[in-house]
Amino acid sequence: MRNIVPLKYLEMEFKLFHKDKFSGARWGRIFTPHGTVDTPVFIPVGTQGSVKAISPEELKEIGIEIILCNTYHLYLRPGEEVIRTVGGLHKFINWERNIITDSGGYQIFSISSLQKPTDEGIKFRSHIDGSEHFLTPEEVLKIQLSLGVDIMLVLDECIPYPATRYQAEIALGRTLKWAKRSKLFRENDEKGLFGIVQGGTFEDLRKRSAEELVELNFDGYALGGLSVGEPFSLREEIIECTNNYLPVDRPRYLMGVGTPQEILRDVALGIDIFDCALPTRIARNGGVFTSQGKKNLRNAVYRKDPRPLDPECSCCTCRNYSRAYLRHLLWAKEILGMRLTTYHNLYFLAELMKKIKQSIKEDRFEEFKKSFLEKYEDNR
Amino acid sequence: MRNIVPLKYLEMEFKLFHKDKFSGARWGRIFTPHGTVDTPVFIPVGTQGSVKAISPEELKEIGIEIILCNTYHLYLRPGEEVIRTVGGLHKFINWERNIITDSGGYQIFSISSLQKPTDEGIKFRSHIDGSEHFLTPEEVLKIQLSLGVDIMLVLDECIPYPATRYQAEIALGRTLKWAKRSKLFRENDEKGLFGIVQGGTFEDLRKRSAEELVELNFDGYALGGLSVGEPFSLREEIIECTNNYLPVDRPRYLMGVGTPQEILRDVALGIDIFDCALPTRIARNGGVFTSQGKKNLRNAVYRKDPRPLDPECSCCTCRNYSRAYLRHLLWAKEILGMRLTTYHNLYFLAELMKKIKQSIKEDRFEEFKKSFLEKYEDNR
Repeated sequence: MRNIVPLKYLEMEFKLFHKDKFSGARWGRIFTPHGTVDTPVFIPVGTQGSVKAISPEELKEIGIEIILCNTYHLYLRPGEEVIRTVGGLHKFINWERNIITDSGGYQIFSISSLQKPTDEGIKFRSHIDGSEHFLTPEEVLKIQLSLGVDIMLVLDECIPYPATRYQAEIALGRTLKWAKRSKLFRENDEKGLFGIVQGGTFEDLRKRSAEELVELNFDGYALGGLSVGEPFSLREEIIECTNNYLPVDRPRYLMGVGTPQEILRDVALGIDIFDCALPTRIARNGGVFTSQGKKNLRNAVYRKDPRPLDPECSCCTCRNYSRAYLRHLLWAKEILGMRLTTYHNLYFLAELMKKIKQSIKEDRFEEFKKSFLEKYEDNR
Repeated sequence: MRNIVPLKYLEMEFKLFHKDKFSGARWGRIFTPHGTVDTPVFIPVGTQGSVKAISPEELKEIGIEIILCNTYHLYLRPGEEVIRTVGGLHKFINWERNIITDSGGYQIFSISSLQKPTDEGIKFRSHIDGSEHFLTPEEVLKIQLSLGVDIMLVLDECIPYPATRYQAEIALGRTLKWAKRSKLFRENDEKGLFGIVQGGTFEDLRKRSAEELVELNFDGYALGGLSVGEPFSLREEIIECTNNYLPVDRPRYLMGVGTPQEILRDVALGIDIFDCALPTRIARNGGVFTSQGKKNLRNAVYRKDPRPLDPECSCCTCRNYSRAYLRHLLWAKEILGMRLTTYHNLYFLAELMKKIKQSIKEDRFEEFKKSFLEKYEDNR
């Protein structure tokens, strides 16, 4: 096994290199002891310590610089103790590049049961075995530190969409208190730590959330509570409003997004970081991104189609396999089918991010976005 | 995609290089237009056109020279027409090395329903959608020729174990008639074609089966109707008896075997070719071969075990991952877990076959077998 030093705490740094002249799009770079991450970046999701169907070797081949793991899942199974014994999360999962972990807040509110948030922390029952747990903001950071990840997120309280103003205020108040305690707790550590802006769909609450978090001086700011069912236009308003109150020299992370279209639109608003399980999840059901739009390979039209999935793509899958074979594998429930479509979708997004970065450098992001979306949407 | 010529018919050849001085073990080589296959060989099973969980690239990395696909499965889904349209089975599945297909006989009798064998052929219903089908010995060869595989098997009638002498005689008579028709049908083709020795557990029927098939002059001989629940000792008796009547200059293929122990014991009896879904199937449930014996990684003892699966193995899985991580992946139902254990089991068998070959060359096969089995079984 490779020799990795997962427990050496060093500060995360972010450098903003260039802002596009005609949009909010930004090109930057995150530096950590596990390497650099160019932004805008799409982070593949490895919930339980594995990006589903894909190996770390393949992620590197695709050019992935960072993956996301879930504190909630790893805390419940296999447990931080197992991971620490084996030498930290990087060594455990054989991934020597960057890892970001979310705090588990979102999972506690969406997939555990009997959640009881109080000012002290959250009581909940495991979705795996029903066992009872209680996590505080401090405990959540302790777990992430023990995993040895590069970027951590503070515990937050997530509200459903739509939510009343009253619900949003209560959750926001608690999230801000927890953010303060989180900041105090890790005062002397030097890992990257991101705050999470909440406030539902209420602009004044988002403003308050952003301003109070910025006062606490986090290494980056996540926009939470979005991509939960709200209309695109509302989401864009909230992003624009929130970004107004965030410092330009810190990365902005839109959690739970997204598709190629969403990424392009939100990069234009100044978002630097995205993560989403959708591209890998839809791939396992045959949903693939192509330069002509999204396709579903299970469709009967591909039964005898000898062409590659996307003739403009040069990934392993597109170089070696026909639509007919991929369709067969998916219907036959063969693991290889899910591997090949997942590989393609991650490759497609990695290439998209490269092109986005290049277009920002050359101040032609809007032009690139327009031509991509025209082609992509016409053939949906 | 690579340029493959899957439909050029050329003869299969077999050369026997060396027979071990102190056992029946043989070292030989099969030659076909898609390359060579050294024997003794273990053939991984790619039932539906994919060795489950593994990519063709990985198979090549492991050193696999031939895989087995199932005529029954490919005939039902995606159908030979789809495969022909895309350019033949090699191109369809992106595998330019050798492919052997079984005739479908075994699958028709084990997983389809309402099978009705007559002298003309077999009527059965698909296990996928219940649709009715009728296959003759000629039709089964036509399908295999259309797939463009390198080695084909004749249609046979499989009987359960235990079976009465009467059942065995009826099935054998039919299987021999079908073998004659198969030989007549492909008279002018030059693909490899193997006959299948049947006869249940009755030595005189096995003898009759072998002798009549040998008269038909096949390119190789499969031993069918074994590995269906009979005791090891009985199987060995039947193999020894059958091999007496098979020509030394043709490969002998024991279908449905096996484990490292079985392979070693049956190589000693003069078997050249093995295939079995077990090594890949058990891998997906955490069952792994190691130099110390078979282990199940789901076991609680591996929860915090930082060691590689088999410290004496140098495969990708053993070089990069701990037992603790593999156990976690398997419990978390992550595809990567099944990939890594499957890779290891195939690598383990490929290494075993290499060592077997080397020991035969050096006339020390029995010695190798003994030392392997002592170590393997002690720690089961």
